[in-house]
Amino acid sequence: MQQDLRSVEVDAESVIRSITPALDLTRHKGQAGKIAVIGGCREYTGAPYFAAISALKIGADLSHVFCTKDAAPVIKSYSPELIVHPVLEESYSVREEDKKFISSKVLAEVDKWMERFDCLVIGPGLGRDPFLLDCVSEIIRHARQTNVPIVIDGDGLFLVTNNIDLVSGYALAVLTPNVNEYKRLVEKVLSSEVNDADATQQVLSLAKKIGGVTILKKGKSDLISDGDTVKSVSIYGSPRRCGGQGDILSGSVAVFLSWARQHIKAADPNSNLSCKNPAVLGCIAGSAMMRKAASVAFSHKKRSTITGDIIEFLGKSLEDICPAT
Amino acid sequence: MQQDLRSVEVDAESVIRSITPALDLTRHKGQAGKIAVIGGCREYTGAPYFAAISALKIGADLSHVFCTKDAAPVIKSYSPELIVHPVLEESYSVREEDKKFISSKVLAEVDKWMERFDCLVIGPGLGRDPFLLDCVSEIIRHARQTNVPIVIDGDGLFLVTNNIDLVSGYALAVLTPNVNEYKRLVEKVLSSEVNDADATQQVLSLAKKIGGVTILKKGKSDLISDGDTVKSVSIYGSPRRCGGQGDILSGSVAVFLSWARQHIKAADPNSNLSCKNPAVLGCIAGSAMMRKAASVAFSHKKRSTITGDIIEFLGKSLEDICPAT
Repeated sequence: MQQDLRSVEVDAESVIRSITPALDLTRHKGQAGKIAVIGGCREYTGAPYFAAISALKIGADLSHVFCTKDAAPVIKSYSPELIVHPVLEESYSVREEDKKFISSKVLAEVDKWMERFDCLVIGPGLGRDPFLLDCVSEIIRHARQTNVPIVIDGDGLFLVTNNIDLVSGYALAVLTPNVNEYKRLVEKVLSSEVNDADATQQVLSLAKKIGGVTILKKGKSDLISDGDTVKSVSIYGSPRRCGGQGDILSGSVAVFLSWARQHIKAADPNSNLSCKNPAVLGCIAGSAMMRKAASVAFSHKKRSTITGDIIEFLGKSLEDICPAT
Repeated sequence: MQQDLRSVEVDAESVIRSITPALDLTRHKGQAGKIAVIGGCREYTGAPYFAAISALKIGADLSHVFCTKDAAPVIKSYSPELIVHPVLEESYSVREEDKKFISSKVLAEVDKWMERFDCLVIGPGLGRDPFLLDCVSEIIRHARQTNVPIVIDGDGLFLVTNNIDLVSGYALAVLTPNVNEYKRLVEKVLSSEVNDADATQQVLSLAKKIGGVTILKKGKSDLISDGDTVKSVSIYGSPRRCGGQGDILSGSVAVFLSWARQHIKAADPNSNLSCKNPAVLGCIAGSAMMRKAASVAFSHKKRSTITGDIIEFLGKSLEDICPAT
């Protein structure tokens, strides 16, 4: 059964307006969201920074990064606004006989903070070191046990695609694959090829097969499904494809997912949201926000638009849609 | 006896105008204030930077940071304006048998500078390493012996709450607790619960019980007491609660406290200040300055306001209240 894309297009701006919390002087630090990014290694430092700073620019109160010891000073130096924990380890710095001990130490460091976080973003700049990925698998298991939502992107998707049980059946998990990551996911989970002619049906089947996790399939239109419903977001967008935009998206989805969860818990009787899955709502809002900021940045910077330019327009883009009073 | 908050609201802008020194071409480097921040460890580097740069942006001439060896290169990289001393040590880098020696070395490094400072800010990004906190306890004792004012925030409050003798009876000490830090302080010192219905009386009792130190209780209104008087500052303010704002406040209070002390020493016969406690005056001015800068930043950046944005508006906010001629 083929479904017309137009039929699943959602009013994303109205979702943003519904879930974004009102601000007032009685609020205290942390209430607007505490986000942590798990990523950053010897090779990659930009991606976790982009994800973590985007969370703050959208309105989270605190943004942490858990990365390797090599990556920490660099990520710290990008911005004093982030809290950067140098706790992850890669194989090259760990002897075989120490692995068990180091792994439990890494876990303990992250666990100290776990319950305070409203959402984890797992994967930006994580790299593919086997020892590090083993530790991250454990972090994912602990997040599930604590009911902390997780947004998985980049090398986190590499990990999860090869170990789908890590997220399978966890309704608070979001996967945000690009074209290539989606292809691998479909091949691995559905044992089939990507079918662009029936994209909505396929993303629905994929999300259902992974037990109701939410998939945000990035593309010309972003497609979002939790196995129950499919939504598409096609507004705005930019033709510029500089690296790092996926990191903005993952950080944004994390904040909106947290806000959607608060909104649903508060059970506002005036809420006109038909969808009650915070993961889906977070993806809709994050997708629209990213697409709008990218479009505004492109109108200013054209071909020279880089990821930092887009981040600078997150605040204005949100303000245009949902003014803070 | 319950006191109406309005009855203790102070004209903070007039305090700022009274204590801010006039500038003229005959002045030399250092006269407008030399501030030092004690803080910054492997985990935290943003907080001491925010406190130290805020002191400069308000008008101090020199701003130092004393931090651990790991934190120093990162804090230096945030700004060439700061003088960053890599002198503190955490347990992990010190062998048991070396502790006494290292501790006396740390003390000697700070002592070399102590008499030149007009105020210390103790706590931003200090962390909670026991060896490091022991060294900082000694730094506090030396500051008292030298009559150097101290503003204590963040992990410095954790230290002092558990060792109240460190500051008890020191009139040049300021504590700047947020909601949670205030709760711990009240429980520890007054052996009671926080009483919001009679907040002015409680902060008065607390300050008196700690022997006349000045408390700046941060909240929707900031409450300030030295055990003798209570003042509240409610003007301006912002609903944004991003982490780091407390660091701006502590750096600002340090500068204004130094200025108030100079002003009182000069015994200007035209001074119309009814309060003669420089710690209280510094808190009033610092609170109003922070609240105004936060409010101006929020009017520009709305939900995407981050701490760095607020710091950028410190100068304009002070200029609006008290123009440099």
